Amino acid sequence: MKKYTPPSITAVRLADSYLAPRMTANYEVTIPSSIRKCHETGRIEAFKLDWKPGMPNQPHIFWDSDVAKVLEGMAYAVAQHPEDRALAEELDSYVDLIISAQQPDGYLNIVFTSQRPEERWSNLYDCHELYCAGHLMEAAVAHFRATGKRKFLDALCRYADYIATVFGTEPGKLRGYPGHEEIELALCKLADASGNNKYYDLARYFVDERGRTPNYFVEEGKKRNGELHYGLENRQAHKPVREQHDAVGHSVRALYLYTGMADVAAHFDDAGLFAAAEELYQSIVNRRMYITGGLGSTPIGEAFTEDYHLPNDTAYAESCASMALVQFASRMLNITGDGRYADIMEQTLYNGALSGISLHGDHFFYANLLEVDDNTFTHGVTLKQRQPWFDCSCCPTSYCRFLPQLGSFCWSQSLDGNAPEYRLNIPAAGTADFGSAKFEVGGTYPYDGNIPVTILADGDFTLALRIPAWCRSFRATLNGETLELQPEKGFLTLKRHWNPGDRIELQLDMPVDVVRANYKVTSDAGRIALMRGPVVYAFESIDNGNVLPRLCIPADQKFNLAEAAGLPGVRAISVQARLEADNSGDALYLRAAARAPEMEFQALAIPYALWQNRGAASMAIWMREEK
Amino acid sequence: MKKYTPPSITAVRLADSYLAPRMTANYEVTIPSSIRKCHETGRIEAFKLDWKPGMPNQPHIFWDSDVAKVLEGMAYAVAQHPEDRALAEELDSYVDLIISAQQPDGYLNIVFTSQRPEERWSNLYDCHELYCAGHLMEAAVAHFRATGKRKFLDALCRYADYIATVFGTEPGKLRGYPGHEEIELALCKLADASGNNKYYDLARYFVDERGRTPNYFVEEGKKRNGELHYGLENRQAHKPVREQHDAVGHSVRALYLYTGMADVAAHFDDAGLFAAAEELYQSIVNRRMYITGGLGSTPIGEAFTEDYHLPNDTAYAESCASMALVQFASRMLNITGDGRYADIMEQTLYNGALSGISLHGDHFFYANLLEVDDNTFTHGVTLKQRQPWFDCSCCPTSYCRFLPQLGSFCWSQSLDGNAPEYRLNIPAAGTADFGSAKFEVGGTYPYDGNIPVTILADGDFTLALRIPAWCRSFRATLNGETLELQPEKGFLTLKRHWNPGDRIELQLDMPVDVVRANYKVTSDAGRIALMRGPVVYAFESIDNGNVLPRLCIPADQKFNLAEAAGLPGVRAISVQARLEADNSGDALYLRAAARAPEMEFQALAIPYALWQNRGAASMAIWMREEK
Repeated sequence: MKKYTPPSITAVRLADSYLAPRMTANYEVTIPSSIRKCHETGRIEAFKLDWKPGMPNQPHIFWDSDVAKVLEGMAYAVAQHPEDRALAEELDSYVDLIISAQQPDGYLNIVFTSQRPEERWSNLYDCHELYCAGHLMEAAVAHFRATGKRKFLDALCRYADYIATVFGTEPGKLRGYPGHEEIELALCKLADASGNNKYYDLARYFVDERGRTPNYFVEEGKKRNGELHYGLENRQAHKPVREQHDAVGHSVRALYLYTGMADVAAHFDDAGLFAAAEELYQSIVNRRMYITGGLGSTPIGEAFTEDYHLPNDTAYAESCASMALVQFASRMLNITGDGRYADIMEQTLYNGALSGISLHGDHFFYANLLEVDDNTFTHGVTLKQRQPWFDCSCCPTSYCRFLPQLGSFCWSQSLDGNAPEYRLNIPAAGTADFGSAKFEVGGTYPYDGNIPVTILADGDFTLALRIPAWCRSFRATLNGETLELQPEKGFLTLKRHWNPGDRIELQLDMPVDVVRANYKVTSDAGRIALMRGPVVYAFESIDNGNVLPRLCIPADQKFNLAEAAGLPGVRAISVQARLEADNSGDALYLRAAARAPEMEFQALAIPYALWQNRGAASMAIWMREEK
Repeated sequence: MKKYTPPSITAVRLADSYLAPRMTANYEVTIPSSIRKCHETGRIEAFKLDWKPGMPNQPHIFWDSDVAKVLEGMAYAVAQHPEDRALAEELDSYVDLIISAQQPDGYLNIVFTSQRPEERWSNLYDCHELYCAGHLMEAAVAHFRATGKRKFLDALCRYADYIATVFGTEPGKLRGYPGHEEIELALCKLADASGNNKYYDLARYFVDERGRTPNYFVEEGKKRNGELHYGLENRQAHKPVREQHDAVGHSVRALYLYTGMADVAAHFDDAGLFAAAEELYQSIVNRRMYITGGLGSTPIGEAFTEDYHLPNDTAYAESCASMALVQFASRMLNITGDGRYADIMEQTLYNGALSGISLHGDHFFYANLLEVDDNTFTHGVTLKQRQPWFDCSCCPTSYCRFLPQLGSFCWSQSLDGNAPEYRLNIPAAGTADFGSAKFEVGGTYPYDGNIPVTILADGDFTLALRIPAWCRSFRATLNGETLELQPEKGFLTLKRHWNPGDRIELQLDMPVDVVRANYKVTSDAGRIALMRGPVVYAFESIDNGNVLPRLCIPADQKFNLAEAAGLPGVRAISVQARLEADNSGDALYLRAAARAPEMEFQALAIPYALWQNRGAASMAIWMREEK
């Protein structure tokens, strides 16, 4: 079923101004500061298994995953920066520490080894054993691919082998599955890296067992006399996954599950399971996704809510969920080759996935609100400003491993060696070296639609160039001659013998577009947003003053590109707006008052993902339309 | 300090079409059905103290209060319907059952007597012992006033005496206070009814001890090794009440506390405490109150959030909180005589307080959303339709006791017997018999502003008539002659000798008013609401179809009164609106699409408090303004 695969972590070297600096900041700032935080909080040292009551830094049930994600990111960094021997050595020392924590039976978990051994596998609903196992597997695969060393991979294979003795449909095994999905997709990676397909079988078991009757979580809850505080939907365990039609519950859990479903479906050519994943994908992108690619409309359970319920100022839109949507869409794209997945992958990547981290790389949003002002209600991690770390620090550590993959989202290559094909999903500037084929992408995408692609090595292969759904007009030339091609499923496809220096010029029309939401999204009724290419724009008080709720934007105007102070190289949008006077004073409600007078106002919008990089501010994406 | 008092529960007999039918429904439906529910769920039988593990209907920590509130309502009904001897006998039988549950030391609580006696007073933060005690006191006072019998009152005085031996600043006593306020105001009532002012001292202790350092809840939490799940602000215990400037936390708890603060301040002539109550009142009405008088902007902790954060579709606006705001404003009105409190009391009563109960009297909202559609996110008791009962059924039982008091909110009388004064706060039609003075109010308020007031008995006294703040023009005549009076603090004051048959005609201009919110209320930006007199109007899909998010309302138009099908006698508002076409189809976001075409649409708005009495529906108050 699966047609394409992402390039290796080292194949693509980005040089654009939107993505590449994020990768650099990750290497230079985010990974080192995350390692430091993991030390400071005792997360790494917890693998010594010597924590005792009364000591500081009591290990937590999700700590294994935080460390694993940082290690996965380090492994990618080691691969992308082979000159950094110190980093490779540091990584290896942590790997050795983790392996030292593995028990003779293969089990590997800090809390349920050092603190609560008698509770192993007793509370899959609340605890994170299988989730942590999955992240350790992903880290081990990354380490193996970066270094060629098998020790971490082998350790995690032993853990997976042990898990397969515990869980399954065979008599005597627990018919359980994770309360926080992740291991499903990780087992698929483990299978690919180890070459042992039995891990796909275990992944398929976890996917297919989920939500069956009798419900494992319900029965488990009875045994431990515990409540299922968030219910079954929050864990996507209310019914078998093939019978689920709406994306529900905890949005990160959901997206990890759906990604695993796609992986399992692709491996087994399971059309039914793929159709289930596709239906859940449609549920997200057609009814439950913020314009930023943000997922999760409430902090209550960090969850999806109802179709079209997308409040801007009480959004959750967890950073991890958007990163997971990029991952899920990337899987669907590579399985099918259909550009509509690339459209969502790109929209999410350029907006909601990158908004969670500061440009400098050391501050993070957990929840990514779409509107923030003085009166925004913050709850838990729904904060108005990025933070250096969180007690539950999944988002920062997710960036460590997500950002090194940005280049891998930009390109795909065919799995059929007899029909080599290279696909430029996102035309960010940089180089891509597939061994048999080499490319250089120029231009300043996403700030400009002129994209020169130069072939650096000769060969016979297909080159596919994505024409985004947002692009209503394009032109393409090959060595100066116009190509009379129309995109199929979102890609222009050129199959031929290529010579070094062959040059395609792709020109994507990229006007500032006014976007309206489906009228069922009541939060956005009467409002418009601005997008240009894949970039969602936002109005920040830094540029406009504290006037955002009083601004109205006429849709019919010529929008001009502009500079934003303090954001060099960024293309902002200059907007002719109307500003309503503030005549409300101290009154909460004004009865029979005249509408406030309006005046002309020159407003400025910047890319949403870049907001709050110049200090605390208020911000809004959806602005009232001046009719 | 206190100038006025509400009339007794029997003094005012309403005959209007807005309030009086609610009182009738309460007597005929709500009280009987609540008694039945209290039986069905075991709430009443729990006072037999014979529940054992394994039996159904395990008593809950707030059950005493549910029963007490129904009994308080029954006592008012017994007073207002002296012909109903069966009701009086039924009430007495429950009173006897409750008294039988009192322990030798005076303690009276079902859960902490029959189930968890060793935990008495050990968890004031979470449990509801003092809250339940307060409601029992209010019930006992109502029973005493209705029947003249002292047994229930005496029992609760014994309980209060015992509580005074447990709590206080003296050595050996607990320096605790309730996790759910209520007992403060109840002790003031108990003092008035029993004539024993020591209960005022205990009320003052509970008010003033609250939030002091070291914090009782924090220390208590350490002792029981328990968490303060909702924090200290949710319980208004984050600082001493005199240092609190914003209404925070659980909105019902907050309003009960503030009412108690007003009561204590009035009794002790404590200007500092009154000023604290006033500041909290201002915080509510100027920054944290929905246009309906709804309080609480989030289901998370059933709480206030931030200034001007008043989302319509995720509002909480608990019915109990609005009833409590009516009560608080009534206290402030009677202490000061200032009509601005009557404005809020009336606005809350006519809208958010009555929206929680169906016209028939047997279905209830717990949370009163201001906007409901297919996509509304429901959480817990934030439901789209009224329910017959709740597991936590505070709101239904609050109506049992709240509705019989409606007439008592409409009038006040002076406390100074040498300067008799009668004040018509809300000119609902009906009669008021103060013994020395008798009045008849005619008209059809709030649907019409013409209010004839007839004096039925002669005497020398002052009659004060409220001129609401929403009324920008009024005329008044006495026996046909124009009165050249201007209101002071919201009241026209007429002091003279009155003869039977003297007749005042008050004419309050009552146009349909367009209301705008302070621009800081971002949820209402670009939107308008309609009010007429004290009544907030809402658009319901029953009258308009499922088009509300696509409707725009021009503010500059002549609004006409109209009939609403299925709501006889109700004055609806006919509105010339613009309907945007539904051109969004299945797309979630429409890029570079033309604005949907509009057409003329005749819309209808009904009083918000009456919505969803004609079946399931969508509804909105704040509509997009067509500029």
